[in-house]
Amino acid sequence: MIEDKNPQRTPLENLGEFGLIDHLTKNFDIKHSSTVKSIGDDAAVLDFNNNKQIVVTTDLLIENVHFDLSYVPLKHLGYKAVIVNLSDVYAMNAIATQITVSVAVSNRFPLEALEDLYAGIETAAKIYNIDVVGGDTTSSTTGLIISVTAIGEVAKEDVVLRSGAKANDLVVVSGDIGAAYMGLQILEREKEVFKVNPQSQPDLSMYTYIIERQLKPEARKDIVALLQKLKVKPTSMIDISDGLSSEIIHICKQSDVGVELYETKIPLDPQVISTCEEFKIDSTTIALNGGEDYELLMTISQEDFPKIKGNPNLTVIGYITEKSRGMHLITRGEQVIPIIAKGWNALNNQE
Amino acid sequence: MIEDKNPQRTPLENLGEFGLIDHLTKNFDIKHSSTVKSIGDDAAVLDFNNNKQIVVTTDLLIENVHFDLSYVPLKHLGYKAVIVNLSDVYAMNAIATQITVSVAVSNRFPLEALEDLYAGIETAAKIYNIDVVGGDTTSSTTGLIISVTAIGEVAKEDVVLRSGAKANDLVVVSGDIGAAYMGLQILEREKEVFKVNPQSQPDLSMYTYIIERQLKPEARKDIVALLQKLKVKPTSMIDISDGLSSEIIHICKQSDVGVELYETKIPLDPQVISTCEEFKIDSTTIALNGGEDYELLMTISQEDFPKIKGNPNLTVIGYITEKSRGMHLITRGEQVIPIIAKGWNALNNQE
Repeated sequence: MIEDKNPQRTPLENLGEFGLIDHLTKNFDIKHSSTVKSIGDDAAVLDFNNNKQIVVTTDLLIENVHFDLSYVPLKHLGYKAVIVNLSDVYAMNAIATQITVSVAVSNRFPLEALEDLYAGIETAAKIYNIDVVGGDTTSSTTGLIISVTAIGEVAKEDVVLRSGAKANDLVVVSGDIGAAYMGLQILEREKEVFKVNPQSQPDLSMYTYIIERQLKPEARKDIVALLQKLKVKPTSMIDISDGLSSEIIHICKQSDVGVELYETKIPLDPQVISTCEEFKIDSTTIALNGGEDYELLMTISQEDFPKIKGNPNLTVIGYITEKSRGMHLITRGEQVIPIIAKGWNALNNQE
Repeated sequence: MIEDKNPQRTPLENLGEFGLIDHLTKNFDIKHSSTVKSIGDDAAVLDFNNNKQIVVTTDLLIENVHFDLSYVPLKHLGYKAVIVNLSDVYAMNAIATQITVSVAVSNRFPLEALEDLYAGIETAAKIYNIDVVGGDTTSSTTGLIISVTAIGEVAKEDVVLRSGAKANDLVVVSGDIGAAYMGLQILEREKEVFKVNPQSQPDLSMYTYIIERQLKPEARKDIVALLQKLKVKPTSMIDISDGLSSEIIHICKQSDVGVELYETKIPLDPQVISTCEEFKIDSTTIALNGGEDYELLMTISQEDFPKIKGNPNLTVIGYITEKSRGMHLITRGEQVIPIIAKGWNALNNQE
């Protein structure tokens, strides 16, 4: 009755998340012509007709792995659970249209807690114009688990994959980065303070922006609309959920190219810079490896540069090279250092 | 920093799963014309074009809530996680085409365990001709969590909802029911025996069918094909995951009709009957309230009866009445008793 215990036990840590998915799914065949793009991008692309393609993406959020309810309000959590999935849809240059939401909870959660969670989901659905079209609620033996699947649509000719970057393309990032990670550091610090002195009333007004970026991130639907308006179709695109380093490496590997990024060009909010100084951390390290920014990282053809030049939402941070040139960051001091994926989980020691 | 604690705490048990979903989603608006059918059926129906409709459904499986790894081999679990979702797609009279699979595991699982799980997923995908188009793997603080989303396609005119049953329609069930629940009883009994005497070598050969129905259920893709071949379009359909009672109540409520089911017509496998005798349980109670059979329960127009008559896969078990007549079971002794939803979880005391 009990399954055979395989004597070989390879610890999961040896693979890491991406290695694990590749390893586990490498034998899966594509059988339907409607499956245009399967595992390996931000979302799957399905083509059921001649006009629109459908994108599908899914994420699983686990208490004490992805969120800490001691400082994350449930309404914010519901909002964020939707956002992280929409961000993947927008990274395909698609418009998100529907989501399904599954939730598992232990009996320590009263109805009102779930109402808060769903209020956040509803708010995100309203703001981003999404239909919640299904889901599942069930019990959990321990904490809270949220699984969201998002579906989007996009004209066939508009889909942007990770694999289209070409040498000499410009590397462009939306908004600014590193803030969500520094917001998390503030929240973790205040949690420790609260443990020692529950009466403390911290003044967090100087951290408003970075805390909001952590607790209530937005997905860049506006950037997809902006690109459409500017008539710019990126050659490749990805959302920044694990940090700039790890995302640009995805683009380079899947596009078979190299990259040079310029430290001085990376857009940082002043609160990120001042908080990094306070924490005595290098802000570039945070920009490269801090996660959860949900900005869009893309490559565009040089000839599109005049269209985006001076736009406050988009910053050119480097350019794509031949693969043989490798992947490097050019520092403020003009040092050339290799780009390595660490990812925010490694920084954060959560996984 | 900490969210407001709402003083009102309504225990979740007061609502039950269906009440909870209704309660939590009642304010969600439908914004897209592409959302044809949202929450409230086996799957959501999306229409992105003029030819095919797309169905999407999702399920979350949690260790020690939905499965017990002390007797469920991981390969079977992976297979079953896919099947339970495909069953929902077939219940729409659709063909399943893609799935996404997300998995969270604690570090007590070695790679080989996840390989077994994915081998089961792959086997189901092969047999049912499904593309695995996405997913997420992450860590869990405790047990194993699996979230599957399935997508299917169906010609617009072929979609079957729960809401189309009409008075005088026949109630038809595929296969036989109650077996999965009795298989679970055997497995639970053997687990207790094993705890007392780990050396025991139980002879389970007389329970092969019911154990297989529990550990490795199938989804009735063949029934969707059969109905197509017989040119029968059910007026309503649902898959039997929670027990016949609860499913027929769904159909009646959503179709605004009543029903009369005949105890003597309910198809039971001989192993179910003998095992019920052994456990001194009434087999009709099990058929009505035992779950996880993944058979299809449908209603068909009387004029379609000649097309299904004598087909060994389909059994007529009753007929639809006006709503005012209520929902009843006519027993072997011609007693008329009301049909009440208990569901297998209630029977099983798992939730």
